[in-house]
Amino acid sequence: MRTVGLIVEYNPFHNGHLYHLRQSAKITEADAVVAVMSGHFLQRGEPAMWDKWTRARMALAGGCDLVIELPVAYAAQAAEWFAYGAVSLLEATGVVDAFCFGTESGRLAPLLMAADLAADEPPDFRSLLKSKLETGQSYPAAYSETIQAYLKARGDMEAAAFPFDQPNHTLGLHYLIAHRRIRGAMKPYTIAREKAQYNQTSITDGAIASATAIRKLTLESGALEEIRPFVPATTYEVLMDRHADGIPPVHWEHYKDALFHTLSTSSPHRLSELREITEGLEHRLLHAWPELQEWSIDSLLACLKTKRYTRTKLQRALLSILLGHAKQDFTQEKLASGVQYIRVLGFSKKGQSLLKRMRSAASLPVLMSAARPPKPFRYLELDVQATRAYMLGMPGAKLPSDLSRDFRDKPIMI
Amino acid sequence: MRTVGLIVEYNPFHNGHLYHLRQSAKITEADAVVAVMSGHFLQRGEPAMWDKWTRARMALAGGCDLVIELPVAYAAQAAEWFAYGAVSLLEATGVVDAFCFGTESGRLAPLLMAADLAADEPPDFRSLLKSKLETGQSYPAAYSETIQAYLKARGDMEAAAFPFDQPNHTLGLHYLIAHRRIRGAMKPYTIAREKAQYNQTSITDGAIASATAIRKLTLESGALEEIRPFVPATTYEVLMDRHADGIPPVHWEHYKDALFHTLSTSSPHRLSELREITEGLEHRLLHAWPELQEWSIDSLLACLKTKRYTRTKLQRALLSILLGHAKQDFTQEKLASGVQYIRVLGFSKKGQSLLKRMRSAASLPVLMSAARPPKPFRYLELDVQATRAYMLGMPGAKLPSDLSRDFRDKPIMI
Repeated sequence: MRTVGLIVEYNPFHNGHLYHLRQSAKITEADAVVAVMSGHFLQRGEPAMWDKWTRARMALAGGCDLVIELPVAYAAQAAEWFAYGAVSLLEATGVVDAFCFGTESGRLAPLLMAADLAADEPPDFRSLLKSKLETGQSYPAAYSETIQAYLKARGDMEAAAFPFDQPNHTLGLHYLIAHRRIRGAMKPYTIAREKAQYNQTSITDGAIASATAIRKLTLESGALEEIRPFVPATTYEVLMDRHADGIPPVHWEHYKDALFHTLSTSSPHRLSELREITEGLEHRLLHAWPELQEWSIDSLLACLKTKRYTRTKLQRALLSILLGHAKQDFTQEKLASGVQYIRVLGFSKKGQSLLKRMRSAASLPVLMSAARPPKPFRYLELDVQATRAYMLGMPGAKLPSDLSRDFRDKPIMI
Repeated sequence: MRTVGLIVEYNPFHNGHLYHLRQSAKITEADAVVAVMSGHFLQRGEPAMWDKWTRARMALAGGCDLVIELPVAYAAQAAEWFAYGAVSLLEATGVVDAFCFGTESGRLAPLLMAADLAADEPPDFRSLLKSKLETGQSYPAAYSETIQAYLKARGDMEAAAFPFDQPNHTLGLHYLIAHRRIRGAMKPYTIAREKAQYNQTSITDGAIASATAIRKLTLESGALEEIRPFVPATTYEVLMDRHADGIPPVHWEHYKDALFHTLSTSSPHRLSELREITEGLEHRLLHAWPELQEWSIDSLLACLKTKRYTRTKLQRALLSILLGHAKQDFTQEKLASGVQYIRVLGFSKKGQSLLKRMRSAASLPVLMSAARPPKPFRYLELDVQATRAYMLGMPGAKLPSDLSRDFRDKPIMI
């Protein structure tokens, strides 16, 4: 059984994801699909609109065979560590032959060339990157320009002109860098994303829209009917079930009270001990929040935004505060030592035999829940905390019962 | 102008307080009354039912001339530091000639004798106290027994039989100990509390009921009419105003979401860095809260209560978590260095001239708000944080505007 690995958030699983899943299986000639999926908090520093079990169900119903969880320690990170966590996990399963990601161009060669360069970190690479960041550039732009400068210096003008800073090129590049660093055996592939751009907010196509556009539609209209054309029938059914239970999609404003309470009792020093709080952001935050004109997270983000601090960076900072993610748990060393367990969120019938094979082939313990791990894993504790914080803000959550789902729920089977 | 100092919470100001205020002025032959009053969080680890400005108004309307704030760093503490902060503040005003507290017996002599003993801390005093605490006794009982053992050992049988462990005897004793430690010049007095016992919860008398009984009545019936017989007309008027504004009394359950969110993202280590979290309480807490049968603070307290951990001790622990009070801000050394500023909450016409005199006589800077202190005071920062946390949970608070009342509000004038 040849298996392809995908790195996903599925917030929610839509027609674009279905296309990517099928194309990935096709070009890698895979019979089975493993998805490593973020849990309750996502790469752009947002809570997922639907809890991880609901999204795992969408993934399985949409064609995945095995869904494993990307720990929140990696899931809510910038490209470098997000990619490192995800690629390490896929590799650690021991059953994934290839991994395939969507990019703007669908071209692997320039990304591989850049990954070779970046993974080696030639002399002055970090210092050049740092100097670009210090001019106030965003990370993707600075990273992209650093690579372009190196490619140019060695005369590779065509590769140097490649738009490395497009969102999926940035992510893809970091998948390949991570893959080189861990000396991964999986074969990398990329396919061009179809029809919808990563950040696109309006819906321009009959059947494929970006997850951003779908989320916007869901929140604005509140009418599921409107997103029906853009998601598979299987996703639509899951969303209808949630709707019938009276559970609306989750968003940042549901965590407003918790975040503001945390800010109310935090000193600048305490904040500065948290991940993503750097360069005096603690002072700007503590100054800004009690003076907001409008009493919302959205208004706080608008008020903090600068050229340097993208909304994504700021959302990750707020998330770090919400979850109390201490820098000491996120040192280079701890992150680089990688994921320490493979947490299964769900599997299909085909996934069941894949799971069986994984249990002997994996280089890490395979966990069916957060209960009774073979030893204490700090990042698993953070996953449990993240679930609890998520449930406390989720409208319609059953409290306290839902706080313990990480211990109690068995993987979703479809 | 001869002035008496009182140490108060006024939650709310009732007929018993009025009696105490008048008796205190009478026996000390005082023309003016200074009250040092807790802010938004009280000695038993509870939020005040009415904000500090509202309670300062009650105090002034009831006969106080000057109300100064006991910083939360001392206000939400066990007897020892509560007393130390309050007595230090009164002494630091430079205008208070006497201080007077209510006790069960109204007898000063045994308390003075015990204070002399305890303030000197004779050999083995601390170790005897510690060994009694280790048997699981509550602090007041252990402290009382230690003193009794010493008095007995030196043959003073009558003093040894004095009930030092009654709540107001415990507090009074610590006022006197603090007074000795700081070599206070104020003359101490005590008067017997009339008619209502400290913790009494039912109302047995026509005009005097304990604040506990009044609070219970307020929360149970929600009808202000019911407490009317037990409070001065001036208090009743203030409470009616609040009622007319649609602002109900504040209680612990209003902080449930904030506390549970904080617990959801706290590690045992993080909790153990907080004041009042000792002897493994962090583990019991983190184990208990996600498993509660009933989703309330009351249920959490019931579940944690043991002979050793009184409800008061546990409420203070939860408050420390709610407010994020780090042990490092509450070392013996930092607490003993005492209050560093005198924060005026309100004054009467007579208080105005007292205030003028205080400005030159006080040994500490006099602040009319938290804005622009002469230098940064850590305990003032904690007061500002406490107000913000309080306002975030207070029903009817105007957000974000009320978050900044500590900076913006001038003292109440009556």
